[in-house]
Amino acid sequence: MRSPVQQYLESIVEQCSGTEGEVASYIPELAQTDPDRFALALATVDGHVYTLGEAETCFSIQSISKPFTYALALADRGFQGVAEKVDVEPSGEAFNEISLASDTGRPPNPMINAGAITAASLIAGENTESRFARVLDWLSGFAGRDLEVDEKVYTSELTTAHRNRAIAHMLREFNILHGDPEEQLDLYVRQCAVSVNTRDLAVMAATLANGGVQPVTQRRMLEPAYVERVLSVMATCGMYDAAGDWISAVGMPAKSGVSGGIIAVLPGQVGLAVFSPRLDAHGTSARGVQVCERMSNDMDMHLMHVGRMSTTAVRSRYPLSQVSPRRSRPEADQAVLDAHAERSMVYELHGDLLFAGAENAVRAVVDDTPELVILDVRKVDDIADVAQDTLRGLRAALREADAEMAVVDPQRVLPDPDAGTDQASPYFDDLDSAVRWAEAEVLRRHGRQPTDEQTLVNEHPLLRDLSSSARRVVDSYMEEVHFSADEVVLEVGEQFSGVHLIVEGAVIATVQDRSGGTVRLVTMNPGTSFGELALGTDGVQDTTVRAISDLAVLRLSAEAIEEITAEHPLVALQMWRAMARDAYRVAERALRAGATFG
Amino acid sequence: MRSPVQQYLESIVEQCSGTEGEVASYIPELAQTDPDRFALALATVDGHVYTLGEAETCFSIQSISKPFTYALALADRGFQGVAEKVDVEPSGEAFNEISLASDTGRPPNPMINAGAITAASLIAGENTESRFARVLDWLSGFAGRDLEVDEKVYTSELTTAHRNRAIAHMLREFNILHGDPEEQLDLYVRQCAVSVNTRDLAVMAATLANGGVQPVTQRRMLEPAYVERVLSVMATCGMYDAAGDWISAVGMPAKSGVSGGIIAVLPGQVGLAVFSPRLDAHGTSARGVQVCERMSNDMDMHLMHVGRMSTTAVRSRYPLSQVSPRRSRPEADQAVLDAHAERSMVYELHGDLLFAGAENAVRAVVDDTPELVILDVRKVDDIADVAQDTLRGLRAALREADAEMAVVDPQRVLPDPDAGTDQASPYFDDLDSAVRWAEAEVLRRHGRQPTDEQTLVNEHPLLRDLSSSARRVVDSYMEEVHFSADEVVLEVGEQFSGVHLIVEGAVIATVQDRSGGTVRLVTMNPGTSFGELALGTDGVQDTTVRAISDLAVLRLSAEAIEEITAEHPLVALQMWRAMARDAYRVAERALRAGATFG
Repeated sequence: MRSPVQQYLESIVEQCSGTEGEVASYIPELAQTDPDRFALALATVDGHVYTLGEAETCFSIQSISKPFTYALALADRGFQGVAEKVDVEPSGEAFNEISLASDTGRPPNPMINAGAITAASLIAGENTESRFARVLDWLSGFAGRDLEVDEKVYTSELTTAHRNRAIAHMLREFNILHGDPEEQLDLYVRQCAVSVNTRDLAVMAATLANGGVQPVTQRRMLEPAYVERVLSVMATCGMYDAAGDWISAVGMPAKSGVSGGIIAVLPGQVGLAVFSPRLDAHGTSARGVQVCERMSNDMDMHLMHVGRMSTTAVRSRYPLSQVSPRRSRPEADQAVLDAHAERSMVYELHGDLLFAGAENAVRAVVDDTPELVILDVRKVDDIADVAQDTLRGLRAALREADAEMAVVDPQRVLPDPDAGTDQASPYFDDLDSAVRWAEAEVLRRHGRQPTDEQTLVNEHPLLRDLSSSARRVVDSYMEEVHFSADEVVLEVGEQFSGVHLIVEGAVIATVQDRSGGTVRLVTMNPGTSFGELALGTDGVQDTTVRAISDLAVLRLSAEAIEEITAEHPLVALQMWRAMARDAYRVAERALRAGATFG
Repeated sequence: MRSPVQQYLESIVEQCSGTEGEVASYIPELAQTDPDRFALALATVDGHVYTLGEAETCFSIQSISKPFTYALALADRGFQGVAEKVDVEPSGEAFNEISLASDTGRPPNPMINAGAITAASLIAGENTESRFARVLDWLSGFAGRDLEVDEKVYTSELTTAHRNRAIAHMLREFNILHGDPEEQLDLYVRQCAVSVNTRDLAVMAATLANGGVQPVTQRRMLEPAYVERVLSVMATCGMYDAAGDWISAVGMPAKSGVSGGIIAVLPGQVGLAVFSPRLDAHGTSARGVQVCERMSNDMDMHLMHVGRMSTTAVRSRYPLSQVSPRRSRPEADQAVLDAHAERSMVYELHGDLLFAGAENAVRAVVDDTPELVILDVRKVDDIADVAQDTLRGLRAALREADAEMAVVDPQRVLPDPDAGTDQASPYFDDLDSAVRWAEAEVLRRHGRQPTDEQTLVNEHPLLRDLSSSARRVVDSYMEEVHFSADEVVLEVGEQFSGVHLIVEGAVIATVQDRSGGTVRLVTMNPGTSFGELALGTDGVQDTTVRAISDLAVLRLSAEAIEEITAEHPLVALQMWRAMARDAYRVAERALRAGATFG
């Protein structure tokens, strides 16, 4: 089916005609461009790219290279090394302004030519050749394909770069540039002549939107701290003397180029690229600005747009008792759990645990002050460094209140700072295991005295309501069977082989989901039974039951059940009635649990 | 229990001693301030406020009033009316610079004094008195309490405001100010002398972080579009000539005041306020800057920090068949549903449906191209205007593929643009109703021919396996009972009153959750039964069953069941066995459904 997003983008472009403005003339080669060419590309942070128009047609990158070479300079020299040579202050000046700080001679920012030439000069390498090779490789990494230089544009621009040549020499005069300014200029001009298409630019922008990881190749190009710096500078200085206007009207860090390209970045969401060669007074694509403004307004793509995501870090929160039930324990233990499970809470967190998210989650726990806490962070996307300290702080506060905490975190996205010490919290790979931990803890804290196995068996719903005579008959048909650890007791798909009462040891039952994956594990202990559910599926066993320790079960086989039914109808009646009651009990609990998710 | 967030804030403050810098001297009254006073307040967008130090001690708001009076000017005059008098470009200049555009005479932005005096002059009102009354009321609205003017500061400042007086007259010369510049200056100086405490400032900042709604009083102070404008200007110009440095290092729109206050806004997350009177070279609280930088770094409170939230709009997606089952239809219909339900998909969306979220959700549907789509938007926080067009586009694309869509949206956060027309999609208040719509639609599209009621009854699991003789006995005990629409058939808590087979009409069953709320509705139609689940809860009915149309049921009462058991044991045996099998079937389905959520 056709994507409505694609249709939507088309409708926006139709509404932004944009016939005013002229193509850049100061670089002869650019003056040749057909002014009415147009392309738009939008790349998501998970690597999906929508394109419109001539998205594959190439043109020289020009000033859109500036944020990327600035990024490479940061990667090569670090914040300090770069800051010594170029500042990050908006100058409110035109792109080609020659303005250096009166004291240090530093250009105000790396988005105007003076600052960009300086940033290029900071790129490490043996000589201009190898340094430019690194630039080309760098830009190619962001684009996700091998880029080349448009030699015509390069030559054309180099011969007419009088103003930039002046800037370069001025920078040398202030010792901002080192070495031969002509070589630095050459590097800069070549960088501007790299040939890209609109799709490339969208993906390059999306790499910044994605925290520095190229969304298609998944290659990390830049550290998040440098990404934040680059985006900050684009936001305040990217559009030259129209920066304030742009950030107010469009609200995305952006960079324009004199060949008619614009990139805009919405952190965490998308990279956008537009190409339309007609320029406005600021040397920026006139139609490109139109399209970006329109998209920002229609789609709330504004950096300052307030979403409330970050305040809903607690995806859901519910007492232990609401986690889907399992027939894994004697009624008496169940009663203890029912009585106390309300004070054991599960918190499913999701999204970003940045400050607001972490605060929100912690406050939920603090408000409840439960006895046991299960933090399920499996759906968490992003975690601020502070989250670990918060985890430690939360645990400390809980322990002051004699409470304990467990974490469900198979990926270890929220590693325990005290891992390996006796301070560490238990970590689990799935919620079910954590729930079993919590249930065991509740029983330890509030549990009745453990009962001997015979009593557990006698208390089983299938037996306890039988008359003594009926019980004697049933007992006579029950056989004790032994399995060793890891032995499979029941296999998915096999025929109903009878009801199994656990006398000693434990089993684990696996339920398959439709995709064939194992969706949940149930541990069953003495006093509980398994196998009878097959009666509900036309006698076909649909879980695999495996002994996890040496196991002793009392089995009432399918044949035995048939014989009792045939030869002792009155006993069978009691037996089936007990089974019906037990089954309805399980059904009722399961439906009720399901209801909390409905 | 103690909040670890509180503890964390304390630890940060300890690490930012900040003893350098001097208090402002150019306003005599401010020079009196104890330089070592300190306070920090952090307000979340849901109105929780953390405070440290002297958060209740008052001081004059000074330049922190600028973004708020600019906001009032916008509310009074609109974007255009304000833009004619003051621009939004960062000037890279000091707060007290006298710099007006050579052509228009407009101050570059409303954060420097010239622009702020201009913004104040745009506030509507009869005379200076009534206009200032509006300013005071406006600031009080943001703070959530009635603020007052510090008359001492006002007088002290007015008499020494030579530079601002010069600026005012210069602005009048360019006809940027209208009327008497002395009056405009007076208004501005009074605005700066409004007395606030650190808690007030945090809540005022949080109002901007919350899209213009005061998080404590819930009063909407400002339209979102104006909030975005104010935050944009704070981001580029709020810290004067250190704006670029600030946005790079701290990354939050902010405003400082010469009395030692700083506010910082993290859109959608928190409002932060710090108070420490020692100022740095830019006239900004030195320790305040330290604390903000530290918090931004430790807590990833940077505007450009990339979260991945927005790409996980699809909270979960699963086929109809995985929604917790209900015993509401004949086996044959169930079979049809099992065969086709995989092509009916439920999409639970959450968070913000801004562009990336909406795109992400739409793409999930497009990739699946199911036959029936249920969009569950109950967990969605924020929706961009574009989402409605996207909804319409998605529906159109689905219909081209002969697919249909329903929306679960009790709050109507995603209203149907075609509501009321024959194009509209069905909307539901709960998932269960939508699921029932989808199931009915699947049966309509693929269903077998409807069967007459008698056949449905005969097919019921409780009856179909009985021998003909046993069936005759059971039939003789069944009584046909009639109820009219809305009549309650079974009440929560009543004793087991028997098994009810629906012959005609339908009932709805409500399950209560622990909080007493109604968690799910089940509709049951001819051929299905109710009441028997009570056998699983020691004979206590735990749902309320109500007729939703004229109803005819065949009831096998509890007494009848006892009698059959006593007098026709062989029949009872068959009956209980059938019940056990049926119960296990329900239990198995319910457990399996629960498993997908475990």
